[in-house]
Amino acid sequence: MKEQNFVDRIQTSMRKHSSRIVLALDVVDDEKSKLLERVLSIMRRLSPYIATVKLNYHLLLPLNFKEIKKIVNLAHDHDLQVIADLKLNDIASTNLIVSDYLWRADFDAVIANPFVGYEGGLEPMIKRAHEMRKGVILLVYMSHKGAREGYDLTILNEYDEKKKLYELFIQKAKRWHADGIVVGGTNLRILSSISSRTKGKLLIFSPGVGAQGGNAVKAVRSGADFIVIGRSILFSEDSVSVAVKINKDTFY
Amino acid sequence: MKEQNFVDRIQTSMRKHSSRIVLALDVVDDEKSKLLERVLSIMRRLSPYIATVKLNYHLLLPLNFKEIKKIVNLAHDHDLQVIADLKLNDIASTNLIVSDYLWRADFDAVIANPFVGYEGGLEPMIKRAHEMRKGVILLVYMSHKGAREGYDLTILNEYDEKKKLYELFIQKAKRWHADGIVVGGTNLRILSSISSRTKGKLLIFSPGVGAQGGNAVKAVRSGADFIVIGRSILFSEDSVSVAVKINKDTFY
Repeated sequence: MKEQNFVDRIQTSMRKHSSRIVLALDVVDDEKSKLLERVLSIMRRLSPYIATVKLNYHLLLPLNFKEIKKIVNLAHDHDLQVIADLKLNDIASTNLIVSDYLWRADFDAVIANPFVGYEGGLEPMIKRAHEMRKGVILLVYMSHKGAREGYDLTILNEYDEKKKLYELFIQKAKRWHADGIVVGGTNLRILSSISSRTKGKLLIFSPGVGAQGGNAVKAVRSGADFIVIGRSILFSEDSVSVAVKINKDTFY
Repeated sequence: MKEQNFVDRIQTSMRKHSSRIVLALDVVDDEKSKLLERVLSIMRRLSPYIATVKLNYHLLLPLNFKEIKKIVNLAHDHDLQVIADLKLNDIASTNLIVSDYLWRADFDAVIANPFVGYEGGLEPMIKRAHEMRKGVILLVYMSHKGAREGYDLTILNEYDEKKKLYELFIQKAKRWHADGIVVGGTNLRILSSISSRTKGKLLIFSPGVGAQGGNAVKAVRSGADFIVIGRSILFSEDSVSVAVKINKDTFY
């Protein structure tokens, strides 16, 4: 496993578990010790039915790295990949500090916002990630309503041609050798349009396919390689059945 | 103090300490116990000469909230405000989880990226922050080279007029009732242009005024209310003298 890069590793997990699900571990608990236990127990129950887990601020803020490492280790023991969803958009020195912490805790990939730019922005972080066979996933179009305010802006490029900003982000994702992109599963027209331009080059991760109202089957048909699901599995009475049903409908 | 809102509180700190310095506590130490001690000792030494401290991932990732709270408490004991620099750009539910953690740890303000949009993005977080008299500071133009790739884009607005994206961000900052904006101190032409449009309405925080090559005096003359300084104070042999000199040159 260690010799493969992130794209190979996550495709291996997908096939092994017959699942396109990236489980968003968006769990909250006021008691920190309970929070960690709840996350580990969710993972033990669901790991045969998912491809990957995604951790964001819900866990990265309250837990320290020793606790986070337990989550990462359990994921790897169950052949799952682990993505840190920080939507990084800081200056280079800070991005490197963050990614160094993540790689030391054995995360497999990080999500960043291409809006912050390359020089003095994401460049050193992406280069170091790839040296270490880690993955970088760039936001190309998010899943919430307000996403259109930014990602859908009409811009004039250097040749004075009208473009959508998300089209510029696709170009950047290719040019910067990103491993994957985030494209919301809530707008299927845009998802199809983007996937037709990135097929075979960039893995597509689609959030918004549950609590936010998207639909997993339609998202996969529109080009999503992975579907990011949190609340609609986590808050279900029978989360295993929900995951099994999604896999049956979307893994082929 | 508790009755005032963030803008009043930070201006009180500024006058009390005769300083426009926001000290970026970008400290790294592989040993967690040493990291906390180093930060507290820097603050004890420098607090008379600064207005505010800013914490980012350097501390928020490795330290847990009990440790972070010690930093926040020490700052408040010394009449300093405390800003969390997470450059938030997530969906509403996640932004709220983050800000709830921050307010519970007694932070005074958070930095967010207006690019993520309002509906389903920053709206609920900004509203809750203001109910609690907390501050929201929006990125309008960052300080690194790659910032121009995003913030300086030429866009077409809803009336098909050409605008710079950072001009749109100024409008959003006003419309959303932000308390302040981040404008890099590295590009004085843009800083002047922005400050002429926001004077008296939005506090301007300017990073890049040290290690990144900006100049504190010029930044303040160009409209910065606060200058964000990290490395050039932290890594100095005599950090107190550096801070005193900056205050002498920029506080009037």
